[in-house]
Amino acid sequence: MDFKTEFKPLTVQPQEIEGISFQMIKDELGEHPFTEEQFPIVQRVIHASADFELGRSLVFQPDAVQAGIEAIRAGKRVVADVQMIQAGVSQDRLKRFGGGIDVYISDPDVIEEAKRLNTTRAIISMRKAIREADAGIFAIGNAPTALLELIRMVKEGEAKPGLIIGLPVGFVSAAESKDELRKLDIPYITNIGRKGGSTIVVSVINALSLLAVKQD
Amino acid sequence: MDFKTEFKPLTVQPQEIEGISFQMIKDELGEHPFTEEQFPIVQRVIHASADFELGRSLVFQPDAVQAGIEAIRAGKRVVADVQMIQAGVSQDRLKRFGGGIDVYISDPDVIEEAKRLNTTRAIISMRKAIREADAGIFAIGNAPTALLELIRMVKEGEAKPGLIIGLPVGFVSAAESKDELRKLDIPYITNIGRKGGSTIVVSVINALSLLAVKQD
Repeated sequence: MDFKTEFKPLTVQPQEIEGISFQMIKDELGEHPFTEEQFPIVQRVIHASADFELGRSLVFQPDAVQAGIEAIRAGKRVVADVQMIQAGVSQDRLKRFGGGIDVYISDPDVIEEAKRLNTTRAIISMRKAIREADAGIFAIGNAPTALLELIRMVKEGEAKPGLIIGLPVGFVSAAESKDELRKLDIPYITNIGRKGGSTIVVSVINALSLLAVKQD
Repeated sequence: MDFKTEFKPLTVQPQEIEGISFQMIKDELGEHPFTEEQFPIVQRVIHASADFELGRSLVFQPDAVQAGIEAIRAGKRVVADVQMIQAGVSQDRLKRFGGGIDVYISDPDVIEEAKRLNTTRAIISMRKAIREADAGIFAIGNAPTALLELIRMVKEGEAKPGLIIGLPVGFVSAAESKDELRKLDIPYITNIGRKGGSTIVVSVINALSLLAVKQD
């Protein structure tokens, strides 16, 4: 085996690859309806999915990006519906401001209460988050029931999140839950349709925390 | 607040929702080129992405599904490139056969060696996996460099994985790395194009472990 294959030095550095990708996304996307403030988030979503249709389906409440940045800079918690989001988010940038990310769906008391009430763990995990976390951002990538419960709590005055990132994926209730979210008059980032998921939510949170760091 | 909103009993159970979704996917997909053995995996990928184009882009080496089931039933390890995959996989079904899932990318020795050799952590993590794990399945959802290194090791006789799940997402090298994978004469599950990602890899592994349990 020769030196070249064994050590395989990089000809292109990882940060260069990201730069090249972001330029390709900008060029291929062409005209779009997003503001300068929203565009870095759209770009990172397309980067994570290679899906321009998904990128174009994003919808931002006008205050959403600034609200997300402020929540992160204030060290508020991010609450996610599933562990995959926690595993994917760049936690260093949240910790820098004293924040972090919590997931309650596998807590024994959540599992127990969901069984007792014959409801989903996702719903109970949102109720626990509202009780226990000083949450600035709620991030839903998987469970429409979590998003619908959050919307109910906002409507009934039980919850007042700084930002809702509502991007559940799926064939039953996902698109409908996002339609409901868009009726709220609070900061949200969501999309139209069935697409979404944990990797998409992660890219939104990471884009927001990068913007938060930039304001230093 | 009345009883109904407070306790929100489920009218549709989670398993029913999955059944409804899977039927919708079957109906909307219509004609497809997949075998009866491959179809449950395609269905679960579409369920996780709501993306029929991605589902249709999947490519299976003819022995791949059976090789994956056998590796899981033999209790071989699954090695993934990123933590998100570990967080999303149903580990109970792997443990049932004595297996589990490993990720090396954040190991201190991997980070250190990648710096020293000026290469990616993903590449070094694959080399460590080949040295240390009794891996049956390699699952790549993020890093084309990991997949390319694995392909090199297979070609040079350094690695002989039971199955490669090669589904990195992205604009630089992702599609190309999958083109290279499809030239190998070993079991693989991959796709054509830029799309892929951690949630897609998770749905493939979970579909395989469900098939493994079914053979009990």
